Amino acid sequence: MYIKIICIGRMRERAYDQKFRKYLEWISRDAKLEIITIKDSNSGRVINHINNLKKNNNFIICLSEKGKNFDSISFSKFVFACGNKIVFILGNAEGLPIEIIKMSDFNLSLSKMTMPHELANLVLAEQIYRAFSIKKGSHYHR
Amino acid sequence: MYIKIICIGRMRERAYDQKFRKYLEWISRDAKLEIITIKDSNSGRVINHINNLKKNNNFIICLSEKGKNFDSISFSKFVFACGNKIVFILGNAEGLPIEIIKMSDFNLSLSKMTMPHELANLVLAEQIYRAFSIKKGSHYHR
Repeated sequence: MYIKIICIGRMRERAYDQKFRKYLEWISRDAKLEIITIKDSNSGRVINHINNLKKNNNFIICLSEKGKNFDSISFSKFVFACGNKIVFILGNAEGLPIEIIKMSDFNLSLSKMTMPHELANLVLAEQIYRAFSIKKGSHYHR
Repeated sequence: MYIKIICIGRMRERAYDQKFRKYLEWISRDAKLEIITIKDSNSGRVINHINNLKKNNNFIICLSEKGKNFDSISFSKFVFACGNKIVFILGNAEGLPIEIIKMSDFNLSLSKMTMPHELANLVLAEQIYRAFSIKKGSHYHR
């Protein structure tokens, strides 16, 4: 499986970034992983990039407070039902621009609660790792 | 307001612990905050402690996957409707024992997704801080 994570804005908090990278390292044992950090969410660059990914049959998932809430087992099933090329788009403190939300194939919410975007990125990385653990039946997900 | 946070088990991950303590420091500007770390969730000690807190009119909230999911604004309203002595009980990797869940006044869930308990503790601390920010109308919660 190919997983691409597009982060709008850098992880400025070192503590979050360290753990985020740790989960990415673990995910990359099971999937081809690519992380793209883009500074400015308003540039046409992001939109062009997403258009190209869509043409290449990537399934585009964006993080949005108004998206669907899954439990971890349903999220795991969902991830493995999305095809073998998945793109997650993570916003900055302002969330994602409406154009990007509209372009995506699916809106995902991690919690009804509003989290700082860096904490949300960390929760997402952990959930993707957990999704693989659930699929494999490993002990990580009790 | 008096807020007591009872953590079953230590935060072993330094990255999470640092951020957790940062949020506690921020909360303590607005509330009398007390953190109690208890090693073993199965000891009668926790149960005795909770019984004493209940006798002293504390409102006991435990974190549980099966608890209620709030959005941040509703959580803020809820926190300020619980009286002025609130106790949050956070479990370890195994969650909280059923006796403790039954004893508590309210079961709270931060997300339908299963998170590592240390990450859940961090999300809770951030939400308590956010609850005060919402109440005060500060810029933290846009």
